[in-house]
Amino acid sequence: MELPLTSKQNPRIKQLLSLQQKSSERRQKGLFVVEGRREVLHCMEVGYEVTELYLCPELFQEPFPASAQNQVPLCYVLPAALYEHIAYRGTTEGVIAIVRTPHRELAQLQLSENPLLVVLESVEKPGNLGAVLRSADAAGADAVVVCDPLTDLYNPNLIRASIGAIFTVPTFACSSQECIAFLQKHDIQILTAQLQDSHLYYDTDMRRPTAIVMGTESTGLTSQWREAATAHIRIPMLGRLDSLNVSVSSAILLYEAVRQRKG
Amino acid sequence: MELPLTSKQNPRIKQLLSLQQKSSERRQKGLFVVEGRREVLHCMEVGYEVTELYLCPELFQEPFPASAQNQVPLCYVLPAALYEHIAYRGTTEGVIAIVRTPHRELAQLQLSENPLLVVLESVEKPGNLGAVLRSADAAGADAVVVCDPLTDLYNPNLIRASIGAIFTVPTFACSSQECIAFLQKHDIQILTAQLQDSHLYYDTDMRRPTAIVMGTESTGLTSQWREAATAHIRIPMLGRLDSLNVSVSSAILLYEAVRQRKG
Repeated sequence: MELPLTSKQNPRIKQLLSLQQKSSERRQKGLFVVEGRREVLHCMEVGYEVTELYLCPELFQEPFPASAQNQVPLCYVLPAALYEHIAYRGTTEGVIAIVRTPHRELAQLQLSENPLLVVLESVEKPGNLGAVLRSADAAGADAVVVCDPLTDLYNPNLIRASIGAIFTVPTFACSSQECIAFLQKHDIQILTAQLQDSHLYYDTDMRRPTAIVMGTESTGLTSQWREAATAHIRIPMLGRLDSLNVSVSSAILLYEAVRQRKG
Repeated sequence: MELPLTSKQNPRIKQLLSLQQKSSERRQKGLFVVEGRREVLHCMEVGYEVTELYLCPELFQEPFPASAQNQVPLCYVLPAALYEHIAYRGTTEGVIAIVRTPHRELAQLQLSENPLLVVLESVEKPGNLGAVLRSADAAGADAVVVCDPLTDLYNPNLIRASIGAIFTVPTFACSSQECIAFLQKHDIQILTAQLQDSHLYYDTDMRRPTAIVMGTESTGLTSQWREAATAHIRIPMLGRLDSLNVSVSSAILLYEAVRQRKG
């Protein structure tokens, strides 16, 4: 059933904006907002529960599939002016969804035969985490684990930067302690990206179960990770500046594992 | 000599904004704008000619070095309100410079013993080109060549995303034809990133002089590059999405060359 919505004052519109803008609201309601045709379809394909759809047919580049729409209990139809009021981004093709936050425990992760994981210790910027997820999807990583996160996983900037990888890559938030215990239990080697006492990443064996662990660009990793490490690895910096961002670094390290495992 | 500036109507202020906002103005005057303490110092260190400095001491985190300031013929001092009017970004620490555009021909590039270059065919987004420059700096590439560019090299978004790599990595704009002739003349193999008839990048020998050539994310490379290629290479995509951005792809490919050459 499609219900028309026309007013900015409608409580549905207010709730949607509040979920978009406030992590406290997302946490309390157990809901978050996904914008964009492709992103919403990815999210439904992998089994997330969409509770409400907000569609603006005027802005469709192609019709939203009826099969997907029929799975959603509430579907609102909006005029373009109202859609633009609630849209966080520019070109999202007239599709916004409210989605139920999955409850996920790292302990439930189904590992592949030879796991490859990315662990980030408290990344500051949601956009950076989104970009790491994109690299993790491309390299076929089992999961991304964010330890002691400073942001929630369903921040709109994160979802946007991930171009949907937040849905395709299993993503967990937990404490560093919990993550270290999980990796040790499953005999997954811990390679920490850091300069001190480090080996060049390409001289490091990544053919066995591996977690690549990265800290923040500003402060690096905390001592609990440095102590839990199987080895410390570094990417050689051959230029005059001293910085690759965390998504580029993670892509270089993940693809080295891909190369070693295929080779 | 430090000259105070206080009015938004001052013709210096208007010229600066115009250089920031219009590529036609940059081209006509042969000048561009650099913002940020670190970026301006990088640019001076590598020999760019700064014609004017705009300083806002109230916003300094540390003083701008007198030795650098003394190299610049004109130095204006502004109050914070006026600085914020002209600043393109947030935290630039009270330092903006007007810099002379260098005239550079690809033919003048001094190649290293075993060159490694990145060639981009008409990248659409200045921010993407800036991010590629950052990867190229880290991997110690000889140069980045942008063929048939849709943007000028001194766009503020490009400079910002490069965090100064536009100054540390020799960067050229020229036609694809000119670039292909240069690479062939210097016996540099041309590896084009494309799916058709391609080899996995890590099965490709990059120990000899190499140019990695990438097209746009939307349309890929034109036929002149595909025909000039020594080999076509691809990064395996092991996830559900199908896209690494151009800066991440270039970093993966450049670091494979680094690995093979050190190994």
